[in-house]
Amino acid sequence: MPSTDTINRRVVLAARPNGLPKPSDFRLEQAAVPEPGAGQVLLRTLYLSLDPYMRNMMDPVAPIYTTSIPIGAPIAGGTVNRVVASKHPKFGSGDLVLGNAGWQDYALSDGSDLVPLGDMAKPSLALGGLGMPGFTAHVGLLDIGEPKPGETVAVAAATGAVGSAVGQIAKLKGARAVGIAGGADKCRYAVEELGFDACIDRRDPRFAELLAAACPDGIDAYFENVGGEVFDAVLPLLNVGARVPVCGFISHYNDQALPPGPNRTPLLMSALLQKRIRMQGFIILDHYGERFETFRREMGAWVEQGRVKLREDRVDGLENAPEAFIGLLQGRNFGKLVVRVAE
Amino acid sequence: MPSTDTINRRVVLAARPNGLPKPSDFRLEQAAVPEPGAGQVLLRTLYLSLDPYMRNMMDPVAPIYTTSIPIGAPIAGGTVNRVVASKHPKFGSGDLVLGNAGWQDYALSDGSDLVPLGDMAKPSLALGGLGMPGFTAHVGLLDIGEPKPGETVAVAAATGAVGSAVGQIAKLKGARAVGIAGGADKCRYAVEELGFDACIDRRDPRFAELLAAACPDGIDAYFENVGGEVFDAVLPLLNVGARVPVCGFISHYNDQALPPGPNRTPLLMSALLQKRIRMQGFIILDHYGERFETFRREMGAWVEQGRVKLREDRVDGLENAPEAFIGLLQGRNFGKLVVRVAE
Repeated sequence: MPSTDTINRRVVLAARPNGLPKPSDFRLEQAAVPEPGAGQVLLRTLYLSLDPYMRNMMDPVAPIYTTSIPIGAPIAGGTVNRVVASKHPKFGSGDLVLGNAGWQDYALSDGSDLVPLGDMAKPSLALGGLGMPGFTAHVGLLDIGEPKPGETVAVAAATGAVGSAVGQIAKLKGARAVGIAGGADKCRYAVEELGFDACIDRRDPRFAELLAAACPDGIDAYFENVGGEVFDAVLPLLNVGARVPVCGFISHYNDQALPPGPNRTPLLMSALLQKRIRMQGFIILDHYGERFETFRREMGAWVEQGRVKLREDRVDGLENAPEAFIGLLQGRNFGKLVVRVAE
Repeated sequence: MPSTDTINRRVVLAARPNGLPKPSDFRLEQAAVPEPGAGQVLLRTLYLSLDPYMRNMMDPVAPIYTTSIPIGAPIAGGTVNRVVASKHPKFGSGDLVLGNAGWQDYALSDGSDLVPLGDMAKPSLALGGLGMPGFTAHVGLLDIGEPKPGETVAVAAATGAVGSAVGQIAKLKGARAVGIAGGADKCRYAVEELGFDACIDRRDPRFAELLAAACPDGIDAYFENVGGEVFDAVLPLLNVGARVPVCGFISHYNDQALPPGPNRTPLLMSALLQKRIRMQGFIILDHYGERFETFRREMGAWVEQGRVKLREDRVDGLENAPEAFIGLLQGRNFGKLVVRVAE
């Protein structure tokens, strides 16, 4: 059933996933639409963002920068919402806002987590290239990766929400952009539409060899968002003085245990030392405030001028969120994955 | 036999070590004392520095910042030398210099690698706390580790040439210093003589637990020079925003292959990300020049004022260098290891 005025459909965590989530780990429920109290607004969800970090919140012990979703609670997530009732002085009925309603039709907010979107023409972009994922690319690449003209920047998930922004920003800064993606279609898109200089299919049996050939001068900045075999192939290509912003490592999010041996940590340490590499983790939540305004101004202009293209992979219907999310963890999305929950 | 005026004894690489070097991997040879040509000086070795990096140079493929020692060639190494004959305009017979004569009584130099030591009272310190190892501690801790007053700094090999300087500099900068060392004697010395706030014996079966207890507020900067199990115990104690200068990892220098599984790389990546850790390798050779003068001035004053203590572990006789070096790789030295080659 679609979103209605009278019922709050919500997708809750039915069971903690073992490895890759299964459809039965989620449950679609119906509840009453809540009433806003004093100082609150009632939000209706128009778009729901699906992002890899949500997988970490489904584990019993979540990473320290976030929380574990209780069994039976709605999955958390960023959303574009319409205010449908307000008892808050700063928000009026009809306002379009960026919120954190999670995987449900309706949610209450005290307004502290809402960002007004005005009359934004394509508000779902506030969940992608003009929102958290784009901001992640901007901060990680520019503040930690520090690409210089003529250098080579590599990034995986090159057509995804973050990777596509990383590659296009790298190009705007005068660097060579080498993408890594799953499948020939995505690779073609990265080169032909997004302007990457090369894009290598990580499923190709000759992946490591092809990546090396695409980086004849090595890699000066590698934006790490996948880990695993991609990282293993990148490591020997890193140049002296390379920078590695660590944003995530989706290839391990479903791991139930550490991967089998050998223990490759000494290889990493040895590369860090020999090549004087700087590797730095960052959590985008730390960087909002002043830095977000810089991003919005700069990225907004690039998008308006057509210098950065944002591809959206849109799924219709809240009930399809679980399957779409499972696909995201397998790299089945093509562009920033959003669910259209209501018109 | 001791160093003489007529014979050049030299310790050459007889065979490439498999794992920990054996005495038979070295050979003591005698050769004629060479004659300096135009623009050259003849150096007589007074002190020879033994340092872990030498192990890497004995492998067939050395790290990119150095070279592999050919079979049959003298082992390389920093030395304190007396100029005994000079055909170089800038050096005169009798000059005391810091050089790179390697494991031998005599060597020629064109002067480009020599640093005059003037009438330095204890010239062997130019191989330790006032030389490369002290400089390594100074650059790694201050430029990458960036300790702030009240923070906790941890370092292994706490009574060694580098670690002892790291801990004492950390204290001078207002941080808490927690050392890790092999054995109760060394730990006592680190606390009672060097002023570390705590020092944990890495051989204690409860090592990880004791280290955690000694760092109740976590670790803000970890100076990495050992790797292996010490690093495994440090990793969970690192605080959000921690800095990890990577200077070496002596625990792996004798490895013949990667350690057995599981592959712990995802643990490291996860910690880097969750705790926004900055990990950065450095090679001290990159930092000479202006930065070395800053170090010499600052460290020289600290040593003169008795605010930094430098302990030397002195071995007599070039012929004893191989055994002393093998002991260094096992942590048997207690303080900066130097060989006194001649008076």
